[in-house]
Amino acid sequence: MSSPPFNVSLPTPTWQLLQDWAQSHYRDRTFSKDERVPSRPGLLYLVEQGAVRLVGATRGALTEPPATVNSEPEEAFLGFVGSGQPFEIVTRSPFELQAYAHVDHTVVIWLYWQDLDAWPQLRTEVLDAFRYQHQRKLLWLSTLGQRRTIDRLLGFLSLLVEEYGQPHAQGYCLPFPLTHAQIGSAIGSTRVTVTRLMGKLRQSKLISIEDENFICLPQRLANGS
Amino acid sequence: MSSPPFNVSLPTPTWQLLQDWAQSHYRDRTFSKDERVPSRPGLLYLVEQGAVRLVGATRGALTEPPATVNSEPEEAFLGFVGSGQPFEIVTRSPFELQAYAHVDHTVVIWLYWQDLDAWPQLRTEVLDAFRYQHQRKLLWLSTLGQRRTIDRLLGFLSLLVEEYGQPHAQGYCLPFPLTHAQIGSAIGSTRVTVTRLMGKLRQSKLISIEDENFICLPQRLANGS
Repeated sequence: MSSPPFNVSLPTPTWQLLQDWAQSHYRDRTFSKDERVPSRPGLLYLVEQGAVRLVGATRGALTEPPATVNSEPEEAFLGFVGSGQPFEIVTRSPFELQAYAHVDHTVVIWLYWQDLDAWPQLRTEVLDAFRYQHQRKLLWLSTLGQRRTIDRLLGFLSLLVEEYGQPHAQGYCLPFPLTHAQIGSAIGSTRVTVTRLMGKLRQSKLISIEDENFICLPQRLANGS
Repeated sequence: MSSPPFNVSLPTPTWQLLQDWAQSHYRDRTFSKDERVPSRPGLLYLVEQGAVRLVGATRGALTEPPATVNSEPEEAFLGFVGSGQPFEIVTRSPFELQAYAHVDHTVVIWLYWQDLDAWPQLRTEVLDAFRYQHQRKLLWLSTLGQRRTIDRLLGFLSLLVEEYGQPHAQGYCLPFPLTHAQIGSAIGSTRVTVTRLMGKLRQSKLISIEDENFICLPQRLANGS
């Protein structure tokens, strides 16, 4: 895990066959940026192209005062699912996972788990990908355990850039935008605080913002050294 | 996921064979409460008996002022690994996962991943268990995205009790203790705040404390309805 940023993806022969199969069976669909991906528990989804944003929505808190029916759900950014990666939806009241296309032309394939009986190699790759995603979530939870918000923020950004960052003159950059509100919802802070602390990190040259507002880290931070 | 609390475990014939194999190959070891389980990345661990506590330690923050060499690492409680469940250690500077026996007589088996080539069924079960753990962590991250600390606290406790709780006259109870400091480190709060809010939740009868200081939830909360 101390090498440069990388993507774990599934660019295997099986994966190519799967794409053909999905196309001929109407199991793929293209989404625009921020369009919700209709998804339900028990199915398996694979991102063929683009990126999906997972969001945890909490509908009505368990504690008093009870939320009214019309109250907006609280949403937490739970991470990206990149090209070649699987995801699935978990629902457990009051929490509900939701998937959105994070960029235009995001293509998602869906399968029943039993479809994978015909693709044993793919099944192993999918399960390995979930194993890897679980490891990343443990690191994510570790950074959320830090007392200072600025430490949580930098830890969170460096984990994201390590996983999804692409090489750039300034180090490694996320290839898509991420709002300060989304970052705040992930690290238990507010948009306002994130904006202030991002300014501080930029001043200290721990991050930089390049091109179309993409977040970058110098190489020494992007690979966790 | 709307059924009563349950444990996903591996009480299969394969599991029985594995226990025998581990014993005859000196691959199992018994730990006392709070003893650290020596573990390193790349190996696979299975909890045969008892429960393991996963902790994320952050050694020296990335931001200024730099932590001194002697500073205590910040520790975040990352969850339990119950009997029959696998875990593995991920390290990615500055984060380091650590495993501790959470109760006395905790027995842990260790394997190389390639050992599983001889146990294909177990390999599938282990990967399915990591898939399940990943789903639970996504729910955990959803509750951490809630604005109010009391909502994060109750969401966190209800997820834990749903997964590990055992039936009790008062609903479902965690079968082992969890300190307020450990809870605080998991939900981004302090011991003092957790103590205060736990009092509030008890007054509202949303939780109760039974027997040897075990946390309980009434049935309606323990199964996420």
